[in-house]
Amino acid sequence: MAGSIFGDIFSVVTWGESHGKGLGVVVDGCPAGLPLAEEDIQRYLDRRKPGETRYSTPRKEGDKVEILSGVFEGRTTGTPISMMVLNTSQRSRDYSEIASYYRPGHADYAFDQKYGFRDYRGGGRSSGRETIGRVAGGAVASKILAELGIKINAYVRSIGDIEVDSGKIKLENIEKSPLRMPDLEASERAEEFLEDQMKNHDSAGGVIECVITGVPAGIGDPVFGKLDAALAQAVMSIGAVKGVEIGSGFVAAKKRGSENNDEFCINEDGMVDKKTNFAGGILGGISDGSPIVLRAAFKPTPSIFAEQGTVNQSGEEIRVQIKGRHDPVIVPRAVVVVEAMAALTLVDRMFVGMTSRMDQIARFYDKK
Amino acid sequence: MAGSIFGDIFSVVTWGESHGKGLGVVVDGCPAGLPLAEEDIQRYLDRRKPGETRYSTPRKEGDKVEILSGVFEGRTTGTPISMMVLNTSQRSRDYSEIASYYRPGHADYAFDQKYGFRDYRGGGRSSGRETIGRVAGGAVASKILAELGIKINAYVRSIGDIEVDSGKIKLENIEKSPLRMPDLEASERAEEFLEDQMKNHDSAGGVIECVITGVPAGIGDPVFGKLDAALAQAVMSIGAVKGVEIGSGFVAAKKRGSENNDEFCINEDGMVDKKTNFAGGILGGISDGSPIVLRAAFKPTPSIFAEQGTVNQSGEEIRVQIKGRHDPVIVPRAVVVVEAMAALTLVDRMFVGMTSRMDQIARFYDKK
Amino acid sequence: MAGSIFGDIFSVVTWGESHGKGLGVVVDGCPAGLPLAEEDIQRYLDRRKPGETRYSTPRKEGDKVEILSGVFEGRTTGTPISMMVLNTSQRSRDYSEIASYYRPGHADYAFDQKYGFRDYRGGGRSSGRETIGRVAGGAVASKILAELGIKINAYVRSIGDIEVDSGKIKLENIEKSPLRMPDLEASERAEEFLEDQMKNHDSAGGVIECVITGVPAGIGDPVFGKLDAALAQAVMSIGAVKGVEIGSGFVAAKKRGSENNDEFCINEDGMVDKKTNFAGGILGGISDGSPIVLRAAFKPTPSIFAEQGTVNQSGEEIRVQIKGRHDPVIVPRAVVVVEAMAALTLVDRMFVGMTSRMDQIARFYDKK
Amino acid sequence: MAGSIFGDIFSVVTWGESHGKGLGVVVDGCPAGLPLAEEDIQRYLDRRKPGETRYSTPRKEGDKVEILSGVFEGRTTGTPISMMVLNTSQRSRDYSEIASYYRPGHADYAFDQKYGFRDYRGGGRSSGRETIGRVAGGAVASKILAELGIKINAYVRSIGDIEVDSGKIKLENIEKSPLRMPDLEASERAEEFLEDQMKNHDSAGGVIECVITGVPAGIGDPVFGKLDAALAQAVMSIGAVKGVEIGSGFVAAKKRGSENNDEFCINEDGMVDKKTNFAGGILGGISDGSPIVLRAAFKPTPSIFAEQGTVNQSGEEIRVQIKGRHDPVIVPRAVVVVEAMAALTLVDRMFVGMTSRMDQIARFYDKK
Repeated sequence: MAGSIFGDIFSVVTWGESHGKGLGVVVDGCPAGLPLAEEDIQRYLDRRKPGETRYSTPRKEGDKVEILSGVFEGRTTGTPISMMVLNTSQRSRDYSEIASYYRPGHADYAFDQKYGFRDYRGGGRSSGRETIGRVAGGAVASKILAELGIKINAYVRSIGDIEVDSGKIKLENIEKSPLRMPDLEASERAEEFLEDQMKNHDSAGGVIECVITGVPAGIGDPVFGKLDAALAQAVMSIGAVKGVEIGSGFVAAKKRGSENNDEFCINEDGMVDKKTNFAGGILGGISDGSPIVLRAAFKPTPSIFAEQGTVNQSGEEIRVQIKGRHDPVIVPRAVVVVEAMAALTLVDRMFVGMTSRMDQIARFYDKK
Repeated sequence: MAGSIFGDIFSVVTWGESHGKGLGVVVDGCPAGLPLAEEDIQRYLDRRKPGETRYSTPRKEGDKVEILSGVFEGRTTGTPISMMVLNTSQRSRDYSEIASYYRPGHADYAFDQKYGFRDYRGGGRSSGRETIGRVAGGAVASKILAELGIKINAYVRSIGDIEVDSGKIKLENIEKSPLRMPDLEASERAEEFLEDQMKNHDSAGGVIECVITGVPAGIGDPVFGKLDAALAQAVMSIGAVKGVEIGSGFVAAKKRGSENNDEFCINEDGMVDKKTNFAGGILGGISDGSPIVLRAAFKPTPSIFAEQGTVNQSGEEIRVQIKGRHDPVIVPRAVVVVEAMAALTLVDRMFVGMTSRMDQIARFYDKK
Repeated sequence: MAGSIFGDIFSVVTWGESHGKGLGVVVDGCPAGLPLAEEDIQRYLDRRKPGETRYSTPRKEGDKVEILSGVFEGRTTGTPISMMVLNTSQRSRDYSEIASYYRPGHADYAFDQKYGFRDYRGGGRSSGRETIGRVAGGAVASKILAELGIKINAYVRSIGDIEVDSGKIKLENIEKSPLRMPDLEASERAEEFLEDQMKNHDSAGGVIECVITGVPAGIGDPVFGKLDAALAQAVMSIGAVKGVEIGSGFVAAKKRGSENNDEFCINEDGMVDKKTNFAGGILGGISDGSPIVLRAAFKPTPSIFAEQGTVNQSGEEIRVQIKGRHDPVIVPRAVVVVEAMAALTLVDRMFVGMTSRMDQIARFYDKK
Repeated sequence: MAGSIFGDIFSVVTWGESHGKGLGVVVDGCPAGLPLAEEDIQRYLDRRKPGETRYSTPRKEGDKVEILSGVFEGRTTGTPISMMVLNTSQRSRDYSEIASYYRPGHADYAFDQKYGFRDYRGGGRSSGRETIGRVAGGAVASKILAELGIKINAYVRSIGDIEVDSGKIKLENIEKSPLRMPDLEASERAEEFLEDQMKNHDSAGGVIECVITGVPAGIGDPVFGKLDAALAQAVMSIGAVKGVEIGSGFVAAKKRGSENNDEFCINEDGMVDKKTNFAGGILGGISDGSPIVLRAAFKPTPSIFAEQGTVNQSGEEIRVQIKGRHDPVIVPRAVVVVEAMAALTLVDRMFVGMTSRMDQIARFYDKK
């Protein structure tokens, strides 16, 4: 499948460049009858907007979404939902110089090698603005999941070396922290760390953790269609992500089997449960009913004000200072993008999962 | 797409259970004219065979592959290549007891929840033997890559806490180490560590590193079709993998932008190059011409001899000791599986990548 | 894949309803470097516009296309091309009555059964306006084909019982005929026939023939990926099409093998050729270098002014007269839709076909 | 997707050549819990076997199927079902001569152009034996449909000019006719016609009609995912098929709207129904609850004993007489292939169709 399409049954196709006319997404495969309004989408888009704290670029992006199709009298019709955000505040002059050289850590060189040329304005298709389509599509997926009792919460687990204390995570603190860290004390320390980076014209990365609750056991398919494999693709496809892990993740590689195995038990509701959740809610690629836990590592923002060496399109080594409006850290704004990708993945796999058992299919078609 | 199909253009479909009649793969989309013989496949399968050292299960699996279609007079014909390995040494009696309960760390419970019942013999479809199809398919992909000058080398980077010294990695040592660790001194320490685990009826995990050289710049597609996203799905789909990272991976999240950016330069051959390769050969989801570097974290083998608590199918908490033939560590045998998944992914994305530029397409069809 | 996505490598996703805000398409997988402007698209859209002759609905649809992304400095960038046509002349009041019953020959009942309700304004997603996205996408595909020396010409072969004389077909006459019949004498007779239908408040169907020249031999894949199978899906997916045939089509079923086989020969250019082309340019699902010939049967426009019996949503049998603006025949306007679907199909299969042979792939990657 | 894979959710991958080691299919996406045994498959394969009447090749093909995976204790497990038929009676010497030239009406030339060479033994992958995989996969799909109350019946509608009388079709006569014509009188006349063809060393084609009953309204997706479009692709992908039509098909193109529209009514069970079924059970690409009716036109068998002109691989025009064992007509043996393709298509679209409505999805996941 071409590169901007995601999902087998619940599919999204995103489009748009940083400095083109706009960006958008078409959601194909959304079931009919879901209540949906532009506000449902806007709430998600607002969470990725820049300019709200001093740790994100002072660009003002209105990013108002418009639903163009697929909704009639307040409900989805089952046909494609096209959503669009017009670009309003893009200033092309900021980017005129960078057309001639390859910014370190950016996709400029790779795009030129692949396509022969590139839309150099603001990163074009490789800009962070590309995620607008993901987030709008993810907002629809999240609404579906909410109807099924499933909640997705992502937050910043660490920025640079500063990590939240697992014991102090309170979800209600996420939006109280300018960095979306649910441990406010860690958040303050991270703010100080970021101030240092900004003074040094430098940038920072971090880790986002995402917890999904309410997923029924049995979602995901053995072998290539594993739920964790699908989540890994989804999250790794976000720009700047360099690592993904599920449950105990890389730490599991250092543990002994007796430490890492989650023993099954009968919980207070009389249901099968696990005493621990090192598996992160997925066993053999299939959800086991425990919360799904994943983490994504984001590299530091490659756009920095400090001088760097690079090469220009004439093949000369040069020194450059990248001007423009940079985020010293993009991790807090990426929280909603991780949620969106998790939602898109989960809805798609749950839809496929409705065909796992003959008895359920027979019941479905009798009832219809 | 159903769960056992992988790849958009160069596709594989694997099938088979641990204790069924056999396992296999159909490769669809392999170009015509590739020299291919059963020996090409067997060499890869032999690398995943158990029973060769004391750190893998003493089961003897012949695992002789047979090519059933798609090859004529020593070359592929462009039509599906069906390959099969018959099961010969499976002893069902070893597994009769475990039908009744859920092994901790295994997929038993998830399968039952999804499908209503399961083939409990040796893990059925969730057995490590499932990878036979991947490896056979990956051997075909690797042969294609070899014709294009691309090499894939994976090895064990760490077992438990014991990690190879990056400065001491010698690829020629991989097969000299019973643990496929390319730093023989680390390998010896890891052997000692494993002896301890075996004495304690316990198991270990580890990390596999995979390096791909010779990949031209420009492979991979922006947004969802990123090369790193495709690799993440591919590698995370291997049983027991709980984390995947590219280049500096999770470490990147702790670095500053000025540290993590790879400066471009002109190398001694007069070509654009990078001074460092923290990106792991992929920028913006597209290969940049540097070696591609990825790592996968494997959890410790969940099958251990030590007593564990769990739940049976009647919903009672019980204590169990899992009998049978277990690998104290599966990581060394998984090296070739990681290579196979990387090869399958790369061939598929390279094939898609042939349509990136109109001038190249026009040239292709003129020449044909 | 969800229902509004077409193509494996060169993919389009269409969206929009008759009376929503607009309609559009996202083309994903278009190679970089193709010169493309809105005029290229508009020319195709203008050919499907209504209101130009008395045989199409007098609605005036401006149908001005806007390219929103994927084109930079006059050339495609390789990233998704989003195109949109805003709805400007839709009058919802025309359709208020039909919300309550099921129009014979229309999708109303089927939509209600599938989705539980429907956007009843002008047919919603099942309106003929849905083809705007197809035609815009097809215009891009046609531009690619033109660069490869491939031409697609469709025309009306018959309306009702009146068929063009194969010996009198002149492609330059297509646009001279208000019915796009390339035999002007047949066209006149068909006009008379249509006048009769209009007097009787009735409608007519017809057959479109499509001829594709310049296709190299070797396009299409054996078994399910046959070029004729892909074309059949593409063309049958156009609303109102009830039959598709290739070459001699249904007539072949009545012929003897000795009559229907095309003998191979060496033509005047010294190339392998066929003495006849009953195969319609496709043998075993693969193009053979001769022109590809396909025909599509369109049923008569289901919207007629004559009174008909039907059922309303309360389950009562009623008599209705459908008001509004109907095309007495939609076949002439569908000519460009057939061309579009043929172009989309052919580009996709040609892109996949670039990976058929190892020697060609090796040459491609050396050259890059 | 590569050419031998069919279906989005319920997928089959077929493999094998006429004269290779065998042929087979992997079914991925079959739900768990379906009772399945080799006899279920064998019954379908036996219907495509040659050698049972004088109108099919006297080759004896045992064609015994073996299920290799995906079935445990008599029920499907939800994992891939691999099925294989070994080739036992192939005599390669029959085909040695035809390696050097291109048989008229066959895929030889197209294969050589596409792949550079071909497996010339018995047509290789383009042989009619390729359908073994389709039929085995279709047998599984048919079993699923049977559990949902859906029946598929195909039969020969015409051979050459001789057509069954619609009023005299009796399904119970299908297997009584050596030509699978459900009007025994027409069958006798067709036998005489075939005797003539055989005397003249010639061959015949024909039309297969397929009727599917019990399909609930609402299956199929608007635009590209239309049920009729999917059926058209499926049926046109069968070798020798040159045309496909639904309902009144090509005849519809000659009718007036008032004749061709099916009026809705309330039937004796008080349900919405149609007075006629010119639509063939599909409106707007979505099933309407009436029987689905499709027809496929098969060209005459291209292998004939009569002398023909062609070209050899050295580019010389030659005269040839094709030896071997030919079917004078393959249409009766293709009946089960059409049924198989219809079943595969319908199951896949019904599975996708389970996600059309939010209320049904919510109910499904509550119940699970």
